[in-house]
Amino acid sequence: MEQAVTPPENQSPAASAQRPPLRIGLAGHSFMGSIHTQAWQSAPKFFDLPLRPEVTAVCGRDATRAGEFAERFGIARVETDWRRLIESDDVDVIDICVPGDLHAPIAIAALQAGKHVLCEKPLANTIAEAESMVAAARESAGRGVHAMVGYSYRGTPAIAYAQQLVVAGRLGTIRHIRARYLQDWIVDPDFPLVWRLQKDRAGSGALGDIGAHLIDLAAFVTGQRLAEVSALTETFVTERPLPSASGGLSATAAGEERGQVTVDDAALFIGRTGSGALASFEATRFATGRKNAIQLEINGSAGSVYFDFENLNELWFHDHTLPAAEAGFRRIHVTEADHPFAGAWWPPGHGLGYEQTFIHQAVGLTRALAAGRAPEPTFDDGAYVQQVLAAVEASAADGSRATPVPH
Amino acid sequence: MEQAVTPPENQSPAASAQRPPLRIGLAGHSFMGSIHTQAWQSAPKFFDLPLRPEVTAVCGRDATRAGEFAERFGIARVETDWRRLIESDDVDVIDICVPGDLHAPIAIAALQAGKHVLCEKPLANTIAEAESMVAAARESAGRGVHAMVGYSYRGTPAIAYAQQLVVAGRLGTIRHIRARYLQDWIVDPDFPLVWRLQKDRAGSGALGDIGAHLIDLAAFVTGQRLAEVSALTETFVTERPLPSASGGLSATAAGEERGQVTVDDAALFIGRTGSGALASFEATRFATGRKNAIQLEINGSAGSVYFDFENLNELWFHDHTLPAAEAGFRRIHVTEADHPFAGAWWPPGHGLGYEQTFIHQAVGLTRALAAGRAPEPTFDDGAYVQQVLAAVEASAADGSRATPVPH
Amino acid sequence: MEQAVTPPENQSPAASAQRPPLRIGLAGHSFMGSIHTQAWQSAPKFFDLPLRPEVTAVCGRDATRAGEFAERFGIARVETDWRRLIESDDVDVIDICVPGDLHAPIAIAALQAGKHVLCEKPLANTIAEAESMVAAARESAGRGVHAMVGYSYRGTPAIAYAQQLVVAGRLGTIRHIRARYLQDWIVDPDFPLVWRLQKDRAGSGALGDIGAHLIDLAAFVTGQRLAEVSALTETFVTERPLPSASGGLSATAAGEERGQVTVDDAALFIGRTGSGALASFEATRFATGRKNAIQLEINGSAGSVYFDFENLNELWFHDHTLPAAEAGFRRIHVTEADHPFAGAWWPPGHGLGYEQTFIHQAVGLTRALAAGRAPEPTFDDGAYVQQVLAAVEASAADGSRATPVPH
Amino acid sequence: MEQAVTPPENQSPAASAQRPPLRIGLAGHSFMGSIHTQAWQSAPKFFDLPLRPEVTAVCGRDATRAGEFAERFGIARVETDWRRLIESDDVDVIDICVPGDLHAPIAIAALQAGKHVLCEKPLANTIAEAESMVAAARESAGRGVHAMVGYSYRGTPAIAYAQQLVVAGRLGTIRHIRARYLQDWIVDPDFPLVWRLQKDRAGSGALGDIGAHLIDLAAFVTGQRLAEVSALTETFVTERPLPSASGGLSATAAGEERGQVTVDDAALFIGRTGSGALASFEATRFATGRKNAIQLEINGSAGSVYFDFENLNELWFHDHTLPAAEAGFRRIHVTEADHPFAGAWWPPGHGLGYEQTFIHQAVGLTRALAAGRAPEPTFDDGAYVQQVLAAVEASAADGSRATPVPH
Repeated sequence: MEQAVTPPENQSPAASAQRPPLRIGLAGHSFMGSIHTQAWQSAPKFFDLPLRPEVTAVCGRDATRAGEFAERFGIARVETDWRRLIESDDVDVIDICVPGDLHAPIAIAALQAGKHVLCEKPLANTIAEAESMVAAARESAGRGVHAMVGYSYRGTPAIAYAQQLVVAGRLGTIRHIRARYLQDWIVDPDFPLVWRLQKDRAGSGALGDIGAHLIDLAAFVTGQRLAEVSALTETFVTERPLPSASGGLSATAAGEERGQVTVDDAALFIGRTGSGALASFEATRFATGRKNAIQLEINGSAGSVYFDFENLNELWFHDHTLPAAEAGFRRIHVTEADHPFAGAWWPPGHGLGYEQTFIHQAVGLTRALAAGRAPEPTFDDGAYVQQVLAAVEASAADGSRATPVPH
Repeated sequence: MEQAVTPPENQSPAASAQRPPLRIGLAGHSFMGSIHTQAWQSAPKFFDLPLRPEVTAVCGRDATRAGEFAERFGIARVETDWRRLIESDDVDVIDICVPGDLHAPIAIAALQAGKHVLCEKPLANTIAEAESMVAAARESAGRGVHAMVGYSYRGTPAIAYAQQLVVAGRLGTIRHIRARYLQDWIVDPDFPLVWRLQKDRAGSGALGDIGAHLIDLAAFVTGQRLAEVSALTETFVTERPLPSASGGLSATAAGEERGQVTVDDAALFIGRTGSGALASFEATRFATGRKNAIQLEINGSAGSVYFDFENLNELWFHDHTLPAAEAGFRRIHVTEADHPFAGAWWPPGHGLGYEQTFIHQAVGLTRALAAGRAPEPTFDDGAYVQQVLAAVEASAADGSRATPVPH
Repeated sequence: MEQAVTPPENQSPAASAQRPPLRIGLAGHSFMGSIHTQAWQSAPKFFDLPLRPEVTAVCGRDATRAGEFAERFGIARVETDWRRLIESDDVDVIDICVPGDLHAPIAIAALQAGKHVLCEKPLANTIAEAESMVAAARESAGRGVHAMVGYSYRGTPAIAYAQQLVVAGRLGTIRHIRARYLQDWIVDPDFPLVWRLQKDRAGSGALGDIGAHLIDLAAFVTGQRLAEVSALTETFVTERPLPSASGGLSATAAGEERGQVTVDDAALFIGRTGSGALASFEATRFATGRKNAIQLEINGSAGSVYFDFENLNELWFHDHTLPAAEAGFRRIHVTEADHPFAGAWWPPGHGLGYEQTFIHQAVGLTRALAAGRAPEPTFDDGAYVQQVLAAVEASAADGSRATPVPH
Repeated sequence: MEQAVTPPENQSPAASAQRPPLRIGLAGHSFMGSIHTQAWQSAPKFFDLPLRPEVTAVCGRDATRAGEFAERFGIARVETDWRRLIESDDVDVIDICVPGDLHAPIAIAALQAGKHVLCEKPLANTIAEAESMVAAARESAGRGVHAMVGYSYRGTPAIAYAQQLVVAGRLGTIRHIRARYLQDWIVDPDFPLVWRLQKDRAGSGALGDIGAHLIDLAAFVTGQRLAEVSALTETFVTERPLPSASGGLSATAAGEERGQVTVDDAALFIGRTGSGALASFEATRFATGRKNAIQLEINGSAGSVYFDFENLNELWFHDHTLPAAEAGFRRIHVTEADHPFAGAWWPPGHGLGYEQTFIHQAVGLTRALAAGRAPEPTFDDGAYVQQVLAAVEASAADGSRATPVPH
């Protein structure tokens, strides 16, 4: 053991176990369901929480698979109908990890039934759905029932620290936002036509799947929203073999039959924020060699930050107020006790992972609910992202014309 | 949710819950105790294990603090005497996370009582203790009772992948091993005299605390052990204020009284392996700006690897068999499905943390025990590290003279 | 001396001195004039050239300053009227390093007078001028009189090697071009209104000054030209103090009087190439912390390259045809004997600078002229860049509408 | 042209041409001779020098090859006997670029004849020679005749800036010096037995060729000299084919005959400076993938610097006095007007190369001579390096025993 750590008094998780429970009902049990569950179960071990999160039930259409998931994570109860989950007495929060077309009905019903909601991103598949969800959340908030959308990358300590630097004025007036989300998992034209490549199920392609994260992160870190966008989208591979199953990255083709790809493979857009910063965004699944490269650079009159999720523990900060001879982008390992969330974990330099971003999301939600505050990002934040996605598609369909983002 | 993942069939953790239990009794509940517990509790959620690990009891001298720990992690039983832990019927493995002076008595008693042992590193405070432990482990192995030492960094996927490259011959004949473990947490001369800075409790300073990891990692990755070493050690700050408590990185001084630092602040050594490679090692707590920089470079006739734990998901590999014009160190993000351990986790590029190295250690131990194999690293591996540590101290005390490492 | 080098036979510069001269007449003697002269004087010392370049005359309006320049570089003759330079018997090439409004008249007159031309970029301030220059170059080529435009970054070995990788098919089908030129020298609102910030003299701001390089580089490396663009431009600081002199980076303000900035501070555009690749470009002088960051990334179906001029000796290459477990961006130090231009210089790893890019430009021009070939980039290449610049401004003025680039 | 630059008044090279000459007589015309000549010829074009350097004669045993060199660089006179060079009336400085066994005789004779001397490193092949040279330099200094040894890497702006940071106290008390010089050009066992691999000609192998640079750089940047060293040296490939010529990196084997390698392939040593810092050094030609990696890290109580010549324009600086949350190694692009030497060159970010380090060496020598000062590094500095080299060899031959470095 290389270093002992005494957690600061105010973060001691020792007492969490004695706190009142916050009971989670999970809808969906694929990749996202598993990382959410791990987050709920890990959060109270490392953070001093006013409520003790506990996943009490999981819901999935296939009882066998849902049952296996429940055994794997030690969840007591299994449901196969999300309506039953919402009706449960032993559930305080509905955690929605199912595809986008079910977000609105589940979230709205849950809020109306007095259950708090954590809903995976993107908020919805259409603007209309998003607006209904926002309306439901506003209504329920009056009753102390809250809603949150799962833009989990906000829980990355380096991202949260970048936001703190902006708030503290360390970047000055923001001039440039440069955001890219680069992946390469469908470069092979024989990668099959999974549901994420079908518009009727996924809504859009790289744009809504990963571009949505960029839109939220840029707004979160800078505090500025896009006023208008000019966009291009493209589908490089228009036909693909049908898949053997609905799998994701590891899916295989079923045979020689091929189907039409109905979503974008890549989306690019540029625009201005309401405060006059210039912004450029790119989301693609065709950037060979880039695996999960969320690259965000912000240039202000007093400084800049740069982040790449492929090195998630690092934030690069340039302090432009220093003498030129000694200024430069500095690599901050965002694992110091004073960094957001980091004090609860290991000694400096030891490194957190993707998992922690979801744990921090769970911590934020738990603390907000205990305090009677609305957790962030709110459904309104989620609806803003939907408005941008819609404006991007409208602009791309209209010769890239500058298209306003309604607010 | 940006990507769905179907775990490969052979890694599905679904069935783990139905497997026979592997019951862990934990001795010690500080930093290491907490990360070990998190590892035992997380491993079966993400790996398909032949046994289902479960921490059934925790032991600590202070019943209140041990009880808080038990509540925090949901551990049913608390003991205050490690002998009681060993006698327990509901414990299969004793997991030793207490200071080094207790390693030998607990481990030997446990093995004799038929309990498997996972013992934190370094194995012991003296060669004599280490040898007794090796003897006990050899004896118990005949009875199917196994021992493992906790050199957890072997569980870093990038390190395990480097080892695979060496085994596959991708580095050719190894010429150079360059290993550094750089930290900076005691640079301030007013940082207090915690127990890690006292020889009677910690054995040695940077040498045994972090240098030990380097010695193990270099041997693990290259398959070569040091034959002789020439060494320097140094204590830069010889007096420090007495601490208010036995804490670690966040300790504070109690008052104006000062005491003697009796361990090294830094240790440097060079040497040769039995196969004729040249090796250099450095362990220090005075490298300002380096937080947990385990930097390992290995140069062979056919290629090289470079690793720094501050970017734990990256391995840099140079393939010297390529044409010179297109060769160079390549940054491999060790999160592909084909990388060691990585297939059980998130999609490529999403990033693992320090926590995972302990989960992988737990997986390795569980699988070995289920298969009746001795888990690695063995106590013999741990004893080798002790021999090097002793040779380093002997050389440093003898004008850096080349000192053989007994085998 | 750490390494001796025997230059390969075919690159031995030994004989250059005995070759027939290539006599250069330089128009302009500021920053660009000085680096061009250094390039002409250095080229024959390190490359085996079929002609021996020699700067025989320099021309500048201010005889004193031109004379100082001539003394500094050992140039025999000074002219104050560029027409005299063109009439000179002892000049074979007119090297144009004056502001853009003089490019067309000098270049056209020189070509008509039978002098080869090297013209700094951007080719001209207007499309009309550029077209006249192209016409003049086409006409003179029939007489064996050639014209080249000074997109000097093509002479960066890493850029030239990237182009070779594309030509060799190592990137496969190109999907993405991502190009940024980031500087920060006018972030301070009190930086004065130098001529580069005045439209009547500079034509445009960041767009034509540095964005032009990106347009050329992207076309050079990929072999693809933009078919249409959608653009934004912005002037962040609209008024600045008047300068004390016409200086550049080190200029100072003359007093309290302020004038209007009439060019863009930043330009962003996205578009498609004729082959269907998606491209994004950004040129800005407001990216705090970025000094001369020409960042170019190209993603193809078989591989990717990444380059940043702030580390000009490095090219990052990802070979996507390797097994995923061992693939990653590799850092190639482009100083091997087999790399473009690099064999003429120092041993591997020793590093070239900005200066070399101009020397390589001089080498390319000299070799082409000796062989009777048209040197590249041609005036046609330069006119293409002008067409893109014009389309960018048109799109920006028309609500970012997708605007075709005429060919 | 992307940026105009007005050089600061005090650096204007305009007047250099009218200054009195400093006439250089060059002994040797291989790689080092060529870069020295380029340096002498370039320096007055970019720096305002009080004397105008000019290479007036070159000396080489082979008149044909020396003549070719003279033509290539425009040098008027050729000599084939270095004694004639020393006797020349038109030579003020003897620039010694021949192998080490000739350093002492030429340097001593030159100083005695009243010629200043610039002598390539390492100063000599033996301590005795070095001491004679130091004595000669001390004697001649009384007559205003000065000597300098060519540790050219001191002219790297990033190195010079690191030294300035140390002098300014920005690193505080220095604790660690970590220096490596890694190359890989003789990894192939069929690379021939060039003169650099023969002890009688080269003195030593990697140790004296590249390790010498490390010893000088560490002393230059920190201002501290080694008090004692403990060392290992190794020859990995003991027999090699005889070469077809005496070439270097590009040499080829003559046939099947093989000879003995009589120098080290690699040298490692550790030690203490007189001020109590710990130091580790490594010089090797077997580090596959490392081309010219001079890696220097210095950790002090107040900060650290890191440098790698493979990115020669960068210095990484960690300011440990900043709050931990915002501290980190920052990448300084050492091309600002305020950086050492950099103001004479291009705008920030444009990048200098290996060549510039020699130009800066020439500038330093010229300015010192004009001012009647002894140029640095002095022969005494060079002799210190020899003492370390000798102590390393003595320690390596004596079981790595700590061996004092005489002063």
